Amino acid sequence: MQQDVILADKIKNGITAPKGFRSAGIHCGIKKSRKDLALIVSDLPATAAAVFTLNKVQAAPVLICKKHLKESDTFKAIIVNSGNANACTGERGYQDAVTMADETAKTLSVKSKEIFVSSTGVIGEPLPINKIIAGIHQIVKQVDESKHISTAEAIMTTDTFVKSTSSTFILDGKEVSIGGIAKGSGMIHPNMATMLAFITTDAVIEKNIFQKLLKDVTDKTFNRIVVDGDTSTNDMVIALANGASGIDPLQPQTESYRKFEEQFYQVMKKLSIDIVIDGEGATKLIEITVEGALCDEDATKAARTIALSPLVKTAIHGEDANWGRIIAAVGYSGIDFDPDKFEIIINDVPILKQKYFVTLPIEEANKTLKPRNINLKIKLNIGKGTSTVWTCDFSEEYVKINGSYRT
Amino acid sequence: MQQDVILADKIKNGITAPKGFRSAGIHCGIKKSRKDLALIVSDLPATAAAVFTLNKVQAAPVLICKKHLKESDTFKAIIVNSGNANACTGERGYQDAVTMADETAKTLSVKSKEIFVSSTGVIGEPLPINKIIAGIHQIVKQVDESKHISTAEAIMTTDTFVKSTSSTFILDGKEVSIGGIAKGSGMIHPNMATMLAFITTDAVIEKNIFQKLLKDVTDKTFNRIVVDGDTSTNDMVIALANGASGIDPLQPQTESYRKFEEQFYQVMKKLSIDIVIDGEGATKLIEITVEGALCDEDATKAARTIALSPLVKTAIHGEDANWGRIIAAVGYSGIDFDPDKFEIIINDVPILKQKYFVTLPIEEANKTLKPRNINLKIKLNIGKGTSTVWTCDFSEEYVKINGSYRT
Repeated sequence: MQQDVILADKIKNGITAPKGFRSAGIHCGIKKSRKDLALIVSDLPATAAAVFTLNKVQAAPVLICKKHLKESDTFKAIIVNSGNANACTGERGYQDAVTMADETAKTLSVKSKEIFVSSTGVIGEPLPINKIIAGIHQIVKQVDESKHISTAEAIMTTDTFVKSTSSTFILDGKEVSIGGIAKGSGMIHPNMATMLAFITTDAVIEKNIFQKLLKDVTDKTFNRIVVDGDTSTNDMVIALANGASGIDPLQPQTESYRKFEEQFYQVMKKLSIDIVIDGEGATKLIEITVEGALCDEDATKAARTIALSPLVKTAIHGEDANWGRIIAAVGYSGIDFDPDKFEIIINDVPILKQKYFVTLPIEEANKTLKPRNINLKIKLNIGKGTSTVWTCDFSEEYVKINGSYRT
Repeated sequence: MQQDVILADKIKNGITAPKGFRSAGIHCGIKKSRKDLALIVSDLPATAAAVFTLNKVQAAPVLICKKHLKESDTFKAIIVNSGNANACTGERGYQDAVTMADETAKTLSVKSKEIFVSSTGVIGEPLPINKIIAGIHQIVKQVDESKHISTAEAIMTTDTFVKSTSSTFILDGKEVSIGGIAKGSGMIHPNMATMLAFITTDAVIEKNIFQKLLKDVTDKTFNRIVVDGDTSTNDMVIALANGASGIDPLQPQTESYRKFEEQFYQVMKKLSIDIVIDGEGATKLIEITVEGALCDEDATKAARTIALSPLVKTAIHGEDANWGRIIAAVGYSGIDFDPDKFEIIINDVPILKQKYFVTLPIEEANKTLKPRNINLKIKLNIGKGTSTVWTCDFSEEYVKINGSYRT
């Protein structure tokens, strides 16, 4: 997937792969014993870009981040707690989020508006703010360039593995890195279902260009993963660019920009797919590509509808090549298409050709669903629109876990 | 639910409760041994109303029904097969549906355009049309006023019980009846997930008025049940009014019309709720009412989003009063609301009051979810819009059945 990367992928360095970033993850007492507080610090003032949940109910930290983005052009740190989402917590929750920013700023001797605040965990319970304040004073002393793994651990809730990656490559003769961590196991666990991602880079990039880049790449990665359709009150992706690489500022439509964007995409895609793979009860990673739609938006709509269909997801889980479920899902997706021109290819094997021509006996078609990685391709053959989304299958485990969960 | 009915609910008479209707259900050989062919005949030419699936992929019988509705003002019969949906079957499938209408018309000595054709079952396989033709010749001889149960049985696919009801009441001093049968277990089984309903009445009602009535009542009943969001290629509701009661023609905005509409609603609601209850793996019937939205459409949107959320459905299955999931679902439903004014009442017990005030410890709140019937009320407190939808919980059984199904 990353064969274009010039230097080896320094995955071990994660979020501190880019120069001038330090981080740490500790246990401050929100959870019983697992790490629950993370801090990412940029030594230089960093340009920031961010995208937030579209849920009408937005947690206090989301509101604070949006406010700071308006008030400040550069940022110094991201403080994140897990175990408590600080969502649906009213005025007190808002004040607690302000306190998290204030305390972090104070201990780093920077302004409060230069801090991003993020929370994930249970909804509707007040933050144990005194534990967090004590934790902030402690974690500030611990940040360095080696703690990327514990940083990634400290933002986890129901995640079963650490999601961390990075890429280092040469741009204009200089070494540039992008690092990222994420949490999320696909809106699976009830009140802990937030998707968070934090990206660092030492590239030099102007704020508005960075924002557009993040938005575009998010639309192709985090916005293309589908687990169960639920959207959290706390979702956010924050990216910091501190310029420590000393490259020339990145300008759109240049070769350098294109190269940077490709690596940025690979980092975000890796984190996105890790979230899908970590979907509770997931046994298969499903890549759904729709081609030949009237436009890209239609292709995305069709691919997302297939990815959201419990009937399709349970069929793939059961290794049942029920193409009727796929065509019916596209049928109610709301897009224009011609059922007579519909084609389905699973892991490179054509299952259905135009005019409902079934190529294989069902027992043979089912075999295409045996592998752990499923590539499902739909050809609509009426236009040039194309899109890819990623999802996982739907197993009995999903229901068991969500039904038996207790706060 | 039917306490307003003046005469006792003649549930035993089902679809043949109205005067002048005869029916039968037989085994013609599409399925191994269960009944698979149903015929409903009206002795008098009947006015018809119908609503069809909005899926872009429409099965051949849907296309034929729509064509006949344009060509004819009155109808004599509905022929239905189960076990094969005649969907995604191309030109041959269309010809087979025409043949079903033609053969039924011929044996009844009426015109082909006076026949409705309906199919449900596996998608993408050609109909065994010779078996069906032989079956039609046989079933025509068997229709009478006593076979409403076998008629309802013959349209079942994955249904675990017969869905049949009727209501008889006095209008203008005369006895009027409405009968209905339905099939559907909530888009659960893959290629057999169609929802069909057939309604008969001996009322006198003009075609356009009847169509509006059916549309309005469908919107409040069959369109308000949510199992997993998938929409079939074959869904249809067909209603016949043969006028055999001899009442004056029903006119909107009269007391008689209001009374008829209420009974029509009760019949359709009963069949709709039966479909929800028969949802594969369902253990609870959930009635979700949203009040105080800006408009009724918003209330429906919010209620449907809650009903579709796998997180809410699995929580209720596990008797976990996770109100965070409910508020988050409304948050991404796309409607306007004020999270600070949100209230949740479960089975008459307030769980969450305005400003995120949690009324009960979670262990107490969970107890409200013990009963088999759950009434979930959401008050948005910003307007007068209201709506009710019905759904079922989401159990491990759902996944097990859908994953292990083989065509």
